Amino acid sequence: MDRKNYQLDAIAAQFGGQVLGDGTTSINQVATLESARVGHLTFLANSRYRVQLAGTHAAAIIVGVADAESTSLPRIVCKNPYLYFAKVSAFLNPPQQLQQGIHNSAVIGAGAQIHPTAHIGPYVEIGARVKIGAGSTIMSGCSIGADTVLGEHALLYPRVVVYHNCVLGNRLIVHSGAIIGSDGFGLALDDDRWLKIPQIGRVIIGDDVEIGANTTIDRGALDDTVIGDGVKLDNQIQISHNVRIGEHTVMAGASGIAGSGIVGRYCRIGGHSGILGHIQIADHVEISSHTMIGKSIREPGTYTGIFPFSDARAWRKNAAQIRHLDELVERIKMLEQEILKKEN
Amino acid sequence: MDRKNYQLDAIAAQFGGQVLGDGTTSINQVATLESARVGHLTFLANSRYRVQLAGTHAAAIIVGVADAESTSLPRIVCKNPYLYFAKVSAFLNPPQQLQQGIHNSAVIGAGAQIHPTAHIGPYVEIGARVKIGAGSTIMSGCSIGADTVLGEHALLYPRVVVYHNCVLGNRLIVHSGAIIGSDGFGLALDDDRWLKIPQIGRVIIGDDVEIGANTTIDRGALDDTVIGDGVKLDNQIQISHNVRIGEHTVMAGASGIAGSGIVGRYCRIGGHSGILGHIQIADHVEISSHTMIGKSIREPGTYTGIFPFSDARAWRKNAAQIRHLDELVERIKMLEQEILKKEN
Amino acid sequence: MDRKNYQLDAIAAQFGGQVLGDGTTSINQVATLESARVGHLTFLANSRYRVQLAGTHAAAIIVGVADAESTSLPRIVCKNPYLYFAKVSAFLNPPQQLQQGIHNSAVIGAGAQIHPTAHIGPYVEIGARVKIGAGSTIMSGCSIGADTVLGEHALLYPRVVVYHNCVLGNRLIVHSGAIIGSDGFGLALDDDRWLKIPQIGRVIIGDDVEIGANTTIDRGALDDTVIGDGVKLDNQIQISHNVRIGEHTVMAGASGIAGSGIVGRYCRIGGHSGILGHIQIADHVEISSHTMIGKSIREPGTYTGIFPFSDARAWRKNAAQIRHLDELVERIKMLEQEILKKEN
Repeated sequence: MDRKNYQLDAIAAQFGGQVLGDGTTSINQVATLESARVGHLTFLANSRYRVQLAGTHAAAIIVGVADAESTSLPRIVCKNPYLYFAKVSAFLNPPQQLQQGIHNSAVIGAGAQIHPTAHIGPYVEIGARVKIGAGSTIMSGCSIGADTVLGEHALLYPRVVVYHNCVLGNRLIVHSGAIIGSDGFGLALDDDRWLKIPQIGRVIIGDDVEIGANTTIDRGALDDTVIGDGVKLDNQIQISHNVRIGEHTVMAGASGIAGSGIVGRYCRIGGHSGILGHIQIADHVEISSHTMIGKSIREPGTYTGIFPFSDARAWRKNAAQIRHLDELVERIKMLEQEILKKEN
Repeated sequence: MDRKNYQLDAIAAQFGGQVLGDGTTSINQVATLESARVGHLTFLANSRYRVQLAGTHAAAIIVGVADAESTSLPRIVCKNPYLYFAKVSAFLNPPQQLQQGIHNSAVIGAGAQIHPTAHIGPYVEIGARVKIGAGSTIMSGCSIGADTVLGEHALLYPRVVVYHNCVLGNRLIVHSGAIIGSDGFGLALDDDRWLKIPQIGRVIIGDDVEIGANTTIDRGALDDTVIGDGVKLDNQIQISHNVRIGEHTVMAGASGIAGSGIVGRYCRIGGHSGILGHIQIADHVEISSHTMIGKSIREPGTYTGIFPFSDARAWRKNAAQIRHLDELVERIKMLEQEILKKEN
Repeated sequence: MDRKNYQLDAIAAQFGGQVLGDGTTSINQVATLESARVGHLTFLANSRYRVQLAGTHAAAIIVGVADAESTSLPRIVCKNPYLYFAKVSAFLNPPQQLQQGIHNSAVIGAGAQIHPTAHIGPYVEIGARVKIGAGSTIMSGCSIGADTVLGEHALLYPRVVVYHNCVLGNRLIVHSGAIIGSDGFGLALDDDRWLKIPQIGRVIIGDDVEIGANTTIDRGALDDTVIGDGVKLDNQIQISHNVRIGEHTVMAGASGIAGSGIVGRYCRIGGHSGILGHIQIADHVEISSHTMIGKSIREPGTYTGIFPFSDARAWRKNAAQIRHLDELVERIKMLEQEILKKEN
């Protein structure tokens, strides 16, 4: 594939920063210090990697002010090299533009309104009265349930399923295998049988959201499940019914929020972590990986609950004592009293 | 969408309870105390929410005997308002009935027997000799492997995959992305290579089971994986080969059971929890979220193993001590001996 | 289905071992001691199950040298009965061979090279310039992105998605719902917005790899995500961008590796466990289920970090003390000093 070339000066003209060295250097892709070759722009975001500077074969490099003279390569000096790199990479790697129009194998429900600039791939099923906004791309094998509304310039990778009656924002990205709007887990015990409670709420997703592969977002039981603007969800996340996630919160892979959890804005939820049902989490809370949050968090900060690993033999000895911790505390109390007695 | 209206008296005639206030009040949907509007029936299942009674815009309300006079709204007084609400909601929100017959894009294998009242959606692949019972719905893009048998009035949402030779019961609901009958994880070490052990067992699923989005249920290695009647599985659960789950057990999202685990009846398994291989769990056992069960449980009860979270600084200090717990116990023993020595 | 029969002598001629008893015994399938019937070959791999020998209805049995005389059934005596059974089972249960050629509903991109002996099922989408090797099977509803290369004799079960530009080896098995090559979770904070970092690396998968149902493997951010030869991944595993997994490592269900993790060869990673970002794990490391690995492991061995479960009441008492462990250690120190003071 032929890639378009840009001069270093042209990049700086668009994204700012100061060019040092040959500004006519030709750039067509970004790469790491180690793998960069001719035509590649690399970056030094962390001075830990400064040692790799000498060996790089990059054509040019993005560096911070402190590293302006750490290399003789053509370079762009800027405040935040990682962010600068992210912007240049987005510029050099625009999202794929698929052909406008509806593939002849797609099945389109009655009353569906699909913008003429949208792409509907093969084997897609679009339900009745669905609306698809301008420039949106629905790749092969997706299924969109009746009455669902999707905004503009959204991108659904192959085999995404959206159930009926959901509202999805602009510039949404959904990766393959994600399921949006499946029934929440609502049951009532009727004598000795579980009775299913119809899940009649919706999923509402704001603008600029990204949803990872095989992530699942359940519809609300009565009210809606709501994902705020700018939320980013990694793969295999489970969002239960009636959860509300605040704007710009990010969640790492395989984490989950149980029913009716409310998470604030700008939170960072670690991988494999979980938040129990009906819990509320304040804005700007960071939750570590593998941590279970069992009560509401009112204050910003970082919260952790990881059992520290060790080699299995040491673990066995120490873990065994956990089952006697309470009793251990009693023994210490007793000792303290004994000592006190002796002192008097 | 026009919704059908029912008078409060008609609802009570069908589901029991005592009507207080205007029995001709018109009802067409259920809703929460907060979101209910004209035509909505709400419920008060927990006296904690009694404070919201005053502000509700519901047309009518389901209340317990103790709350019969807590409101002047038209109301149905009954023993278990949550269960009553569940029944009314199921009545007002019956499952969608899709058109009988086979979509012309579906591929049907030789010898398949599909009941004429079943719905087979677009892009569905039905394998050879598959049987689909009366009134069952197979939505778009599902794949049913050869020789699999599906009961009556089952509902498979889009993009469900069932492998060959499985047996699935009546009224089964399977949400999108669930995989039933994939190979169990069976390997034997042959010198320095892993040899795959063919997984020739089946998955057998009873009646009235619900399976959540992206849940996976592996087929048995030699014998079968068995899911009992009335079992309810939430999203992203992993059921390994040869697991047996007893009737009416429920499992919350992202939990899992490793190979050959046997779980009793009426158990409640929390989210993100796990049960190791070859473990047996008695009836009526509740397992907390994020808990790992490493040995069999013989007695009903609630079992927990969660590391309590705290702010990261406190966690670091306390978690560090876990690696020295055994040694700590030794120090306490020593102190106790010292004290004893002094006493003699 | 009629199954082919083999005499016990013929099996021993192919796989070795010594036949005792009637070598003309007819065998057409393998089974457990308990479920075996006429025509079934069973095995005794663990002397714990010797008690079941008396009751088996198997036609013949594979036993170790120590158990050669534990039964009077026709038998094959060998060194490793479990491995022997695995080999015979693989012989008796060869992978399904689907019809060569491309289903007429499949959509094939420009310039794709599909070997004439490959099987392409219904509703499959093959992107531009994709290469599919000899004897490979792509079952219904799979999607293979542009420029991806798949080796020979691979088997993709229904509804697998492979993104563009990946390289997949020979004899690869991928179960339904698995997603290969989705975007890694790469974000940069731009003021108060998350900026997506294009994920332009690939996924490279070696030979003889198996990938479980609904497992997700993200493509690299700049460099590649690499899965070595002979790696076996169970269901619902999450492999993040730029992870590298060494040859013949196995991972159990719902485990995960965060970004840029490097795992050695012949490791065994337990279910529901996790490895944090940028961690390195040596060869021959075993990680227990539900364990979170937060720093690199340089030495082979078994590593564990499980909170031991107990009944909820005991857990509450003991877990409460974890939040005071550090303080507890201070109290013990104080006691030790007191004792010391008294001794002097």
